[in-house]
Amino acid sequence: MSMYDDNGPHARLRVFGLELPEPPPPVASYLPASVVPLADGRLLVSVSGQVLLCDGSPALRGRVGEEVGLEQAVDNARACALNVLAQLERAVGLDNVEQVIALTAYVRCADDFERQPVVANGASDLLLAVFGERGCHARTAVGVNALPLGVPVEVSAQVVARIP
Amino acid sequence: MSMYDDNGPHARLRVFGLELPEPPPPVASYLPASVVPLADGRLLVSVSGQVLLCDGSPALRGRVGEEVGLEQAVDNARACALNVLAQLERAVGLDNVEQVIALTAYVRCADDFERQPVVANGASDLLLAVFGERGCHARTAVGVNALPLGVPVEVSAQVVARIP
Amino acid sequence: MSMYDDNGPHARLRVFGLELPEPPPPVASYLPASVVPLADGRLLVSVSGQVLLCDGSPALRGRVGEEVGLEQAVDNARACALNVLAQLERAVGLDNVEQVIALTAYVRCADDFERQPVVANGASDLLLAVFGERGCHARTAVGVNALPLGVPVEVSAQVVARIP
Repeated sequence: MSMYDDNGPHARLRVFGLELPEPPPPVASYLPASVVPLADGRLLVSVSGQVLLCDGSPALRGRVGEEVGLEQAVDNARACALNVLAQLERAVGLDNVEQVIALTAYVRCADDFERQPVVANGASDLLLAVFGERGCHARTAVGVNALPLGVPVEVSAQVVARIP
Repeated sequence: MSMYDDNGPHARLRVFGLELPEPPPPVASYLPASVVPLADGRLLVSVSGQVLLCDGSPALRGRVGEEVGLEQAVDNARACALNVLAQLERAVGLDNVEQVIALTAYVRCADDFERQPVVANGASDLLLAVFGERGCHARTAVGVNALPLGVPVEVSAQVVARIP
Repeated sequence: MSMYDDNGPHARLRVFGLELPEPPPPVASYLPASVVPLADGRLLVSVSGQVLLCDGSPALRGRVGEEVGLEQAVDNARACALNVLAQLERAVGLDNVEQVIALTAYVRCADDFERQPVVANGASDLLLAVFGERGCHARTAVGVNALPLGVPVEVSAQVVARIP
């Protein structure tokens, strides 16, 4: 599948009117994504927790169910997943992604907020839209009281890819 | 090892008087378990975060150390692990599980609750009882302020299995 | 690379004046580290969430941004990572570690604490110092309201290693 494949992830991003952002540099001492050989020319790619920043500052801060509304949180989760895609593009190329294994969504929220799965769908739905069946993944969504830089959502992911 | 093996996981479940529940459908856009080939006819199975629901509603809600007591939380963690088993049965079959790799237990709790490991033992002990040595796993247990649908415990797991 | 290799992880630990602690026993029903074959004589090692205890009791308790200061938290994260190293040494030997895949740092903190990445650097920087390039990893750092025994930091990790 090439970058110009009409059914490939790049084409699907175009259909949704989405552009890959610059993959955000890590905010500390680690890699945005690690890549280790699995077997048979395949790779295990672990993408570090992604948050939404604009020029290094949070695009949105606060706790979901308090300062941050549900729809804003879903959008934020989608933007985190778009950063996951940007990291995958740089690490191995989106066209080489064979299967999304798992996604973890951390939702910074009020103590009585219960709709973390709805928030996390913002991220999951983007991966499904862009990768199709290859984007189906296991998922864990939890609430937390605090996240880096005060952002409302953080998303990490593991995928299997072909060697580019 | 067959389904009727006296020492297999199904037999052990019977010994404990436990029945596998219907594997709960995901509450959102993802798979209950993802399966990717590892090598040599083995599979990496990632089970999504499991919670205890009855007919789609939480069987128990609240924070451990507040509305939810320690024993209730341990039972809830065991029920989450039983759902992990149900997902594994459907994805690859319990008899094909070679090794439980890791388990993560999220305990929704009071800010001063410190016994997450005791709660998580409800899940770990069931895996050990059902799988024996193959059920020994690495584990991370943490507290969180909120979980989907207000449940007190969520458990995710990774295992290695043979191709069924 | 042998235990006496001048550039190996053991030599680097000596350079930093660090000694591996006794690998802490798990505080509950699980393994300190699980090991599964990956392929081609390589192993996937998952290290359970490590916390800092002294003789079974927390060396430091509290929430970062409240009772626990930033520098104390960084030191605590480094100590958690030193326990990760101790577990790896016992499970497969530090010299056999080929690549650190990923690290997750849970920081027990005030609701408005935003510097989880700085805290987690205490762990990440130690792995980089000890393993060099092989220590570069993906990372997720999140805040939580509670952790086992009241500790301020818990660190889990996955690595790829050669069969010893």
